[in-house]
Amino acid sequence: MNTLGHIFRLTTFGESHGAAIGGIIDGCPSQLKLDLDFIDSELLRRKTAQSTSASQRKEPDKVEWLSGLLDGVTLGTPIAFLVRNKDARSADYEALKDIYRPSHADFTYEQKYGLRDWRGGGRASVRTTLPIVVAGAVAKQILQEKDIQIAAEVVYMGDAEQARKEGDTVGGIVECCIKGLPAGLGEPMFGKFSAELAHAMFSLPAVKGFEVGDGFALARMRGSEANDTFINQDAGRRTRDGGRETEDEGRRMGDVGRGVEDIGITTATNHSGGIQGGVTNGNDVVFRVAFKPIPSIAKPQQTLNRQGKTCIIAIKGRHDVCALPRAVVLVEALAAMVTLDMWMMT
Amino acid sequence: MNTLGHIFRLTTFGESHGAAIGGIIDGCPSQLKLDLDFIDSELLRRKTAQSTSASQRKEPDKVEWLSGLLDGVTLGTPIAFLVRNKDARSADYEALKDIYRPSHADFTYEQKYGLRDWRGGGRASVRTTLPIVVAGAVAKQILQEKDIQIAAEVVYMGDAEQARKEGDTVGGIVECCIKGLPAGLGEPMFGKFSAELAHAMFSLPAVKGFEVGDGFALARMRGSEANDTFINQDAGRRTRDGGRETEDEGRRMGDVGRGVEDIGITTATNHSGGIQGGVTNGNDVVFRVAFKPIPSIAKPQQTLNRQGKTCIIAIKGRHDVCALPRAVVLVEALAAMVTLDMWMMT
Amino acid sequence: MNTLGHIFRLTTFGESHGAAIGGIIDGCPSQLKLDLDFIDSELLRRKTAQSTSASQRKEPDKVEWLSGLLDGVTLGTPIAFLVRNKDARSADYEALKDIYRPSHADFTYEQKYGLRDWRGGGRASVRTTLPIVVAGAVAKQILQEKDIQIAAEVVYMGDAEQARKEGDTVGGIVECCIKGLPAGLGEPMFGKFSAELAHAMFSLPAVKGFEVGDGFALARMRGSEANDTFINQDAGRRTRDGGRETEDEGRRMGDVGRGVEDIGITTATNHSGGIQGGVTNGNDVVFRVAFKPIPSIAKPQQTLNRQGKTCIIAIKGRHDVCALPRAVVLVEALAAMVTLDMWMMT
Amino acid sequence: MNTLGHIFRLTTFGESHGAAIGGIIDGCPSQLKLDLDFIDSELLRRKTAQSTSASQRKEPDKVEWLSGLLDGVTLGTPIAFLVRNKDARSADYEALKDIYRPSHADFTYEQKYGLRDWRGGGRASVRTTLPIVVAGAVAKQILQEKDIQIAAEVVYMGDAEQARKEGDTVGGIVECCIKGLPAGLGEPMFGKFSAELAHAMFSLPAVKGFEVGDGFALARMRGSEANDTFINQDAGRRTRDGGRETEDEGRRMGDVGRGVEDIGITTATNHSGGIQGGVTNGNDVVFRVAFKPIPSIAKPQQTLNRQGKTCIIAIKGRHDVCALPRAVVLVEALAAMVTLDMWMMT
Repeated sequence: MNTLGHIFRLTTFGESHGAAIGGIIDGCPSQLKLDLDFIDSELLRRKTAQSTSASQRKEPDKVEWLSGLLDGVTLGTPIAFLVRNKDARSADYEALKDIYRPSHADFTYEQKYGLRDWRGGGRASVRTTLPIVVAGAVAKQILQEKDIQIAAEVVYMGDAEQARKEGDTVGGIVECCIKGLPAGLGEPMFGKFSAELAHAMFSLPAVKGFEVGDGFALARMRGSEANDTFINQDAGRRTRDGGRETEDEGRRMGDVGRGVEDIGITTATNHSGGIQGGVTNGNDVVFRVAFKPIPSIAKPQQTLNRQGKTCIIAIKGRHDVCALPRAVVLVEALAAMVTLDMWMMT
Repeated sequence: MNTLGHIFRLTTFGESHGAAIGGIIDGCPSQLKLDLDFIDSELLRRKTAQSTSASQRKEPDKVEWLSGLLDGVTLGTPIAFLVRNKDARSADYEALKDIYRPSHADFTYEQKYGLRDWRGGGRASVRTTLPIVVAGAVAKQILQEKDIQIAAEVVYMGDAEQARKEGDTVGGIVECCIKGLPAGLGEPMFGKFSAELAHAMFSLPAVKGFEVGDGFALARMRGSEANDTFINQDAGRRTRDGGRETEDEGRRMGDVGRGVEDIGITTATNHSGGIQGGVTNGNDVVFRVAFKPIPSIAKPQQTLNRQGKTCIIAIKGRHDVCALPRAVVLVEALAAMVTLDMWMMT
Repeated sequence: MNTLGHIFRLTTFGESHGAAIGGIIDGCPSQLKLDLDFIDSELLRRKTAQSTSASQRKEPDKVEWLSGLLDGVTLGTPIAFLVRNKDARSADYEALKDIYRPSHADFTYEQKYGLRDWRGGGRASVRTTLPIVVAGAVAKQILQEKDIQIAAEVVYMGDAEQARKEGDTVGGIVECCIKGLPAGLGEPMFGKFSAELAHAMFSLPAVKGFEVGDGFALARMRGSEANDTFINQDAGRRTRDGGRETEDEGRRMGDVGRGVEDIGITTATNHSGGIQGGVTNGNDVVFRVAFKPIPSIAKPQQTLNRQGKTCIIAIKGRHDVCALPRAVVLVEALAAMVTLDMWMMT
Repeated sequence: MNTLGHIFRLTTFGESHGAAIGGIIDGCPSQLKLDLDFIDSELLRRKTAQSTSASQRKEPDKVEWLSGLLDGVTLGTPIAFLVRNKDARSADYEALKDIYRPSHADFTYEQKYGLRDWRGGGRASVRTTLPIVVAGAVAKQILQEKDIQIAAEVVYMGDAEQARKEGDTVGGIVECCIKGLPAGLGEPMFGKFSAELAHAMFSLPAVKGFEVGDGFALARMRGSEANDTFINQDAGRRTRDGGRETEDEGRRMGDVGRGVEDIGITTATNHSGGIQGGVTNGNDVVFRVAFKPIPSIAKPQQTLNRQGKTCIIAIKGRHDVCALPRAVVLVEALAAMVTLDMWMMT
């Protein structure tokens, strides 16, 4: 269960303060010239995000490529990579060794495994998402050749700077849009495009909600409001908010469809978020992911230790006030991985 | 991609107006005396729900058991079953053969496969969820022996009777609670309990949102509000809304934990919905599923036909005004399947 | 573990004397006009084989199609089918209910599941291979469009008619040849074409050996004898036994290769059986499967009953003297399924 | 397809002359104190074997552990490891860059991927089996606690020293015996113990044949010869060759069986190789694997280059004369992985 994907697959490993974090990408096509600088820049997006929101851990996040490449070109064999954990001040965490931090995975992992790597969150640390950025950056490059673009942004975030002063943290919501998808991606029944996205997004730490298109708001609409009217794209295509799109923002549909001629069909509105019956309809796939606030707060909290005794902790380490800035590139990365995998399944 | 689950697995088949709908349950333990009446009663819950909300299709939903049972006892081999499609008035749908119903899967399936079974929605019909009820009813029986109870309810539904008069439909939200789970279920990284639930729920038609615990509301909380304080259960345990629970509503924890003594730990609040780091913490698992309104409305709508020409349709067939009543048993069934599968994975 | 295949997948169900035997084919392309008569003829090959070698059970083996087809054309959705078990004289087996037949699965199944369907071998009966014939016949049709031909034959069989007189049974060896494969099928490491074939063939009852190309004989050769020399096909291509092939028996190579021009390369000999490094080299894939004698013999044998007491049995039912004749179509069917699946994986 | 196993899973990576070879072990139980020295000694068995049969490549094969361990104890999280490729004299292979070595994977990989890592065989090198030794050594430790012992030996090997003088190579046969297995392991239909073993063994380079128990010889027996008579173990148990076993070589049966009391049942002979109906019967599991001769021979051979032109090669590099000595530990390792995985599936 450390593997995501069916054909384009990522298997990850690593604890926050172990020797290294990394992964194996399986199913990547051969003869692809990988842009390793782009991958570094994606890791930098994560890092910049991190420093803005004030986490102080200075990891170079230097990717070491172990296999699958010859002169930067993919061989079709597994692409393995790792990032060393250099700046691991485990001593910071020694005090937390016997304490269950509230709403962390300390207690649940210990219940599951009988022990846990208490240093920096171990396998539950947000640092273990680093391989997702790498695999996502590979997937993005393959999708870009197909004119598929993925972009996420923070659409809601609590007041981070005020929270920091009060020793507290905030949550938020990331919205992601996948443009340029043909109709016909996703598998009916148990492999719906929406289900695969939901599964992937809930793999990120702190995710507690996921919705496609108008999502929960659809529950309060009438059918006549929620339905997306099909229109002939030649007559002008409208975006989700009703605005017009220029011709070159449009995209070729029916790449996937077999035998159905491309007749320029799209929907005037996009309440469905580009997915109907679990399958893409050619309009933008739009979804939102809700992140709870980071549970590591400086404010004193009551909790229990391993002996079941009540105690007070104030988590003073190097921690973000909000996961959202760095979550943007993670959401994009997972969206890219799922999209490419669904493409390969078709 | 017509299979759900890792060890306890359901593979389904069937189109709405084909010969039959059914499935194969793989991984069911042997020597289990199945209560077939309970399975019928679950199918009846779905049917009763149906008639209340006024779908007129009178299917007996008689389960025919094909394999895996000897005198009602499971053999450990695959349990295959089917339900015949008797009352299939395909003629009702003939008029819709060349028309893409808005927000249905007509267009996307045709893009994907190059053709579709246009009779009653084919593979995209809600009728294809029938095998889920059967497999869920089997899973529930196994979970009941472990004192795990699953109950869902409609927590929001639009004004159905008013909508019916106006030829319209409504959506809604189902909440589900799994009680009696030990801590330690679910797999870190890509097999989180929450991710598996999300995947399963998005397999249902019309689902557009999913959240665990306080879900999207958590995005707007501070860490100090959102964190669930660990408490020693012996000192009294509180439910999600702060109320007290009597002793016998409590449950044994640590059944799954290996080497960690059961010291009666739980959380005073349950903002996390019983899942932390993707793994159950022993408190109730609580989640909500958002359903969009049924897209088949009697009101006239503009759409396109297969030739890309604009036309008007008014869908007059036998259709529910709201999917919610029948969704309750489906949400429970999938929750039972995921819970049992995660149990078996541990 | 009742599923074979990665993309083209067959999931089977059924006990010998239960209600029905059947399966679900997942991953079959849409818009394929299935020749149902061909499927029946494949089932008939199995039946004719059966009667020749004197099993008397007269099952019509009438396939009932449940889903996935509209007017005989595949929809891309799961194709479910079943064959009823009509002539099930369970009483014949009542005497064997408490006895472990030597070299049957009676004892092992009971150890595994704590019970077994004792009627006619239950899930371990050769009758449960019927769905393989159906799925194989579907796969063959798809492969035929790609000019891939699969043919198996009995290359060794004991003296069946003499064995029958003595109340005994015989085993044998089936050889199979897949012609017309492009180079490049099969996945290195754990998805080798040979490994997938081996796995599939060992799924048949009574299989105890499998070898590719010259197989076990290669263990006794020198490298200089065993190596297959590459030659340029334009200069004339030789078959495994050294003979020449006419032009139209040849086949296009490099269909799968990406970027490598087809330069007519093949091997002069075929000791490798068409597979090198786990991947097809464009020459015929050739393999052999060893079947042990059917364990149900009329001769009296000593065995144990469920209480561990010694007893004597003489199995008098309707049984074949040799599994080989019916095994031919099964070997072909599995070879077709594996070949198509590997094709789809590439 | 670089992953083996269902629950205890190994995913491997690495080319012979890339940066490193390694793997990720997923599904290893937590709280296990790993004996890393034993793992080194297994790697040394492979190395010693190597030097005996005269391959000169001096790789220290130092395992670097990347994750999944805390103070040598398993965390339940993925165990990642690698071995650096230090002594990679790629120049030796430069001459072979454009030549297809006979019966190597050069041609097939290039057909598959459009390019290949020509340095030392790349992904097809026998060096890529190194992670199998590591994962097998982990599996063995877990099996040893269950009193399951696995031992392989070379039962046939050509005259290596004579072949070396003649610039040639030899093949051979490895036999493996798994002792101490309970009855009931393996899954009927497509997950038979024999099928899983066959799949695993065919993952090794140069494997061309696999047989269980008496294997191909069974094809030439009568049922009355091939059947294994069940006997009550209390009355003395016989081994495959008819000899008697002392009490403490015996093993507890029925560990896996559910509800069936252990009544000391075993078989007097073991023609079946411990597997009946795909499921273990409690007797020793015995199988043989046929390896073709190593295709790299010093003798001049005719072949083709990438342009399809005939040329002569004499492979002068550091190569074994026979793969058999090092194959022993590989066969054991895969047998251990399959056995543990099947155990966990039950």
